[in-house]
Amino acid sequence: MYILLVILILAYSKNIECKYTFDTKYADVLIDHFSYTSNKTFKLRYLVNETFWTANGPIFFYTGNEGDIELFAQNSGFIMELAPKFNALIVFCEHRYYGDSMPFGNLSYTKPEYLGYLSSEQALHDFVDIIDILQNSKYGSDGPLPVIAFGGSYGGMLSSWLRIKYPATVQGAIAASAPIWQFTGLTPCGVFYSIVTHVYASANEKFDCSISIKNLWPAIRRVANTPDGMTWLNSAWKLCNNITNTKDVQKLIDAVSNALVNMAMANYPYANTFLADLPPYPVKAMCSELIEPEKYMKDDKKLILALGKALNIYTNYSRTAKCNDFSDTDALGISGWDFQSCTEMVMPMCTNPDDMFEPSAWDYDKVAQDCLVKFGVKPSNPREVVLQYGGKNLKYASNIVFSNGLLDPWSGGGVLSNISSTVTAIVIPEGAHHLDLRESNPADPASVIRARKFHSDSIQNWITDFYRDKINSNFNRVLLV
Amino acid sequence: MYILLVILILAYSKNIECKYTFDTKYADVLIDHFSYTSNKTFKLRYLVNETFWTANGPIFFYTGNEGDIELFAQNSGFIMELAPKFNALIVFCEHRYYGDSMPFGNLSYTKPEYLGYLSSEQALHDFVDIIDILQNSKYGSDGPLPVIAFGGSYGGMLSSWLRIKYPATVQGAIAASAPIWQFTGLTPCGVFYSIVTHVYASANEKFDCSISIKNLWPAIRRVANTPDGMTWLNSAWKLCNNITNTKDVQKLIDAVSNALVNMAMANYPYANTFLADLPPYPVKAMCSELIEPEKYMKDDKKLILALGKALNIYTNYSRTAKCNDFSDTDALGISGWDFQSCTEMVMPMCTNPDDMFEPSAWDYDKVAQDCLVKFGVKPSNPREVVLQYGGKNLKYASNIVFSNGLLDPWSGGGVLSNISSTVTAIVIPEGAHHLDLRESNPADPASVIRARKFHSDSIQNWITDFYRDKINSNFNRVLLV
Repeated sequence: MYILLVILILAYSKNIECKYTFDTKYADVLIDHFSYTSNKTFKLRYLVNETFWTANGPIFFYTGNEGDIELFAQNSGFIMELAPKFNALIVFCEHRYYGDSMPFGNLSYTKPEYLGYLSSEQALHDFVDIIDILQNSKYGSDGPLPVIAFGGSYGGMLSSWLRIKYPATVQGAIAASAPIWQFTGLTPCGVFYSIVTHVYASANEKFDCSISIKNLWPAIRRVANTPDGMTWLNSAWKLCNNITNTKDVQKLIDAVSNALVNMAMANYPYANTFLADLPPYPVKAMCSELIEPEKYMKDDKKLILALGKALNIYTNYSRTAKCNDFSDTDALGISGWDFQSCTEMVMPMCTNPDDMFEPSAWDYDKVAQDCLVKFGVKPSNPREVVLQYGGKNLKYASNIVFSNGLLDPWSGGGVLSNISSTVTAIVIPEGAHHLDLRESNPADPASVIRARKFHSDSIQNWITDFYRDKINSNFNRVLLV
Repeated sequence: MYILLVILILAYSKNIECKYTFDTKYADVLIDHFSYTSNKTFKLRYLVNETFWTANGPIFFYTGNEGDIELFAQNSGFIMELAPKFNALIVFCEHRYYGDSMPFGNLSYTKPEYLGYLSSEQALHDFVDIIDILQNSKYGSDGPLPVIAFGGSYGGMLSSWLRIKYPATVQGAIAASAPIWQFTGLTPCGVFYSIVTHVYASANEKFDCSISIKNLWPAIRRVANTPDGMTWLNSAWKLCNNITNTKDVQKLIDAVSNALVNMAMANYPYANTFLADLPPYPVKAMCSELIEPEKYMKDDKKLILALGKALNIYTNYSRTAKCNDFSDTDALGISGWDFQSCTEMVMPMCTNPDDMFEPSAWDYDKVAQDCLVKFGVKPSNPREVVLQYGGKNLKYASNIVFSNGLLDPWSGGGVLSNISSTVTAIVIPEGAHHLDLRESNPADPASVIRARKFHSDSIQNWITDFYRDKINSNFNRVLLV
């Protein structure tokens, strides 16, 4: 099986709902913050909403992930709902090489000479520069404001790393569903797919739906072993992209596996369009379509038909699609994350024999070789993230909340228990991928409401500390010269 | 007056005494740790002495400054004397672009395209990589070892920054005479030369020697205003580099100012060759040559002769020199630091009207323009160091001792009072530039002996913490894959 390196965000719906409005700003930041071969800059995009801000209110600063920042701004309602309570300025800052923030314009993705400045360290420094600009603007005219970093998924990793590396810049960080330990030597490679399997296995009280899925792959391979079988499958599943050869079969299996992962990540208690147009608790919804395995399990075609029908929840929840499309859509965002996976963000992934997915080992050498072919680069050191951000040794970090939903496969690489009194972990048993960052919903489980309260209390403490320290120490505002 | 940007280390004696022996090692490290335009490496030099090391003993890791690492290894006897007590492995790691660690060989200094990778962030990552190599060698075979970073001057800045940025890599840092606050917005630009003036003013109980020095500059300018006067001065001071024009006069004044600064920095209680071949307490020695100002003060030539004789302490303490040379010798090291001053290490310096030096303002724009002419670069942001390392906001740092000698002009940009219970400051009233890192000497004042004891006790606490945390937490050793 092809292991999905690119699953942090994947294909967002192209139809971004624009519930929240922002002023779009651009600032010149260095392309390379850490060397001095050139002092070229580019325009980094950030979104600002000052509706709720009053003097001395904090800055809520979302550290953008691998995608268009508008997507995150529209899918992080918690931040918008919390801002009035704190009179906070809201800023969503884009990650370089995504959305509208291209260091070399249309050439940015053409070769390593241009793409090479895509790294987490460079992105963190961009964030520091934007915060510095804000502090030296009208917002900071009465003195520096406390800054709270927010982020989900890779954005959550960045928010925690921003606090770890630049504690003088951000006072605290809410890191939601941040798999900062999904790296070499820190977490077994099979945890991710084991969690996905577990989520499907426990979605229905009556039976284990993961077994039906586990049987799907060999059934597809047997049926699609002949041209007639492929034709049948194309028709049975109404595929938009028909399969015509063995390579296509592999692609289909990868895409369906990916869809199953996406449903686990977006396994929210209400209908949503986060990763696809999905019903409430999509895993449960899909599994409920499969509750009579005796009716289909013994026959390949019946099994494929049953699964095809169940998977319509993913491809055609709106019932408007004319065919079923499992492919990802956000090609650029994925390409960027692919590059990051090939340089810094090397996340070992494999399946265990008991998982509902086809067997797959983690083969670092093959990954590195594929990266060389695809981008002309390979990871310089698979442990770079561990060396850079400290791995499991976070004793000396402070003011970070790591939150994880236990329905989220990424929780396996997350921080699930407290590190110290100021680096705390909060677990949301009924939560999927950073549910806590989403806007409140009547269907929210009690655990996510508690998590959001915990975030709010933590932020309150950090802000109180900030102003106390400011009064009691020689904390200086550093002015631009 | 030309402000001396390059004074952290300056001209070491070329005759390095080799009291301590090391194995010389080289490791391949990335030229650029933070981007992925290329994965080229170069050979970084480090020196290892395992004489005192036994299993589980810590690593004492000196973070090399702007010069040949051998110089620091031979001038940091405190580390060598402390190692047996802790069974420590001793490592002196060279800073890229100095000594034998040239990323682009002989071309390294030829243009920004090559020289641009000279930055503190890149150097810190080199150190992290070398420590990682050591942890994964025979030394770490029983588990990771606690690492204590040491450094003096810029090396001390690096040792504190290494702990601040990479607390998972180093357990604590001794930062001796580290002017981490000698940056824009943190420390008034005149502090440095005020301290030098104060040291000369108080060197002799009977009179204020800084007044004689303050009168020297106009005397030189008046006398050297004619060709005959220049000839007289060349002969009176037996200059190696004769002055023949106004530019030379400026150079001479700068060089003599520099010599006076060097004597303040190396104002140790015993003869030493650290910055020049100097007697015990060279400032006192020089000032004692000037105790009868009434005999020379009213006459320019008499004043010049008296000062020339006094300055022989700097240029000819050995009484073997045939002429007097005030110029610096370590051209390469200085060139590197000049570049760093033109990019990241922008340290505002000026003189106050009451100082014994000629008046000089801090003119950032002029500095930037000169940098552009000299190196083809200018500072991207004069506050880069503040943004990168936190400026005065060190509340969330830990396990650092900042030590400063009050005779040292760099103490003005240092941390002179405790930041927290784990970021502490220790002051050595009779100490000059990182006296505490030098080997013990019968002439050592009690204050430096106390400082060394404080260092030792701090290190003991950090090591105890390290092994306690290792036992009580899920602290994992991350193996190379």
